Amino acid sequence: MPSDTPTPSAPGTVRPGGRTARTRAAVRDAVLTGLVEHGYPGLTIEYVAEHSGVHKTTLYRRWGGVEGLVADALDLAGEDSWSPPDTGTLHGDLRALAQEILETFTDPGGAAAPTAFIAAAFQSERAAEALRGFYAERFARCAPLIERAVGRGEAPPGTDAGAVVRAVSAPLFFRLFVTREPVDTAVADQAADATLAAVRAGAYAPPA
Amino acid sequence: MPSDTPTPSAPGTVRPGGRTARTRAAVRDAVLTGLVEHGYPGLTIEYVAEHSGVHKTTLYRRWGGVEGLVADALDLAGEDSWSPPDTGTLHGDLRALAQEILETFTDPGGAAAPTAFIAAAFQSERAAEALRGFYAERFARCAPLIERAVGRGEAPPGTDAGAVVRAVSAPLFFRLFVTREPVDTAVADQAADATLAAVRAGAYAPPA
Repeated sequence: MPSDTPTPSAPGTVRPGGRTARTRAAVRDAVLTGLVEHGYPGLTIEYVAEHSGVHKTTLYRRWGGVEGLVADALDLAGEDSWSPPDTGTLHGDLRALAQEILETFTDPGGAAAPTAFIAAAFQSERAAEALRGFYAERFARCAPLIERAVGRGEAPPGTDAGAVVRAVSAPLFFRLFVTREPVDTAVADQAADATLAAVRAGAYAPPA
Repeated sequence: MPSDTPTPSAPGTVRPGGRTARTRAAVRDAVLTGLVEHGYPGLTIEYVAEHSGVHKTTLYRRWGGVEGLVADALDLAGEDSWSPPDTGTLHGDLRALAQEILETFTDPGGAAAPTAFIAAAFQSERAAEALRGFYAERFARCAPLIERAVGRGEAPPGTDAGAVVRAVSAPLFFRLFVTREPVDTAVADQAADATLAAVRAGAYAPPA
């Protein structure tokens, strides 16, 4: 089993791409597999140790426990290079955003990990915090999408990018995880088109 | 402990308001308490038997198991007399709907049971089905709200009541159970105002 870095530093702060990063990724993979297989209530340090090859004492020392493992796996999921669509129109961008969500959550392989995180947040305040941070960072990445739309005259100045991205996302997540209704391209397009209408009406901008 | 009805009929079909209804309500209360205290993964037949005063063998015979108990508790929750707001304007009705959701989920007492059901649906397909049925029936009750709006010229003919009610609800549920962000009156009002703009633009009506 791989040895660990000598200092009890925060996860992932030592030599990106090196041994620490590899250990962290192996642990993250084991956490995801465990969440998908057993859900948060069934996830144990023993499971993560066995599936990552990292010793239990190391896991406890660096992540504190199961809650810390889940939160760090989610932090790591946020360290990707995703950027919002740039189709040339706000309408196209909103439709593409909704389509991305649809595709992620109708692909069983793609849906498993994010669904497991959303479920874990019902049982763990640290998972909920990590999820909040993940989405805040995602919404911040969407600011250029709205800046471009404002520049093209498609959205009022001051339109809140986070509010727009939440608006196009919410109807899909609501069906997937609250009302448990099916989602399809028609639902995704309707979310995008409704959001565009609300943007144009100034629903996400400060009062004129 | 109360005796049971002699026939293995479907729950609640015998003498509404009588012994069967009382048994069903006692069982429902125990299921809710258990879900709120322990979550779906920790809910056991033993717990429900102890807290309802209904014998385990009766619970197994009439509800089949924990999944059936949760699904029936949710069915029973849908048997209320809720009706949508009727403020005289579509804008007022949408704001009132959003405010109702806000109040339910920011009151810890009110939030506990619906939150527990939403969480249970991640782990139980029968709970998910029951939740789907619950919301379908709720949305159907909102048809008159949209009929009145169409009659007043506030919404295009053919506007889909379910789509409108989902649209005003989704941003609140998305923050509560996905992004784990706070909700307040400003968020609720924005959801209502954005939905109104989308309704006016025909986003929830068939193409003209």
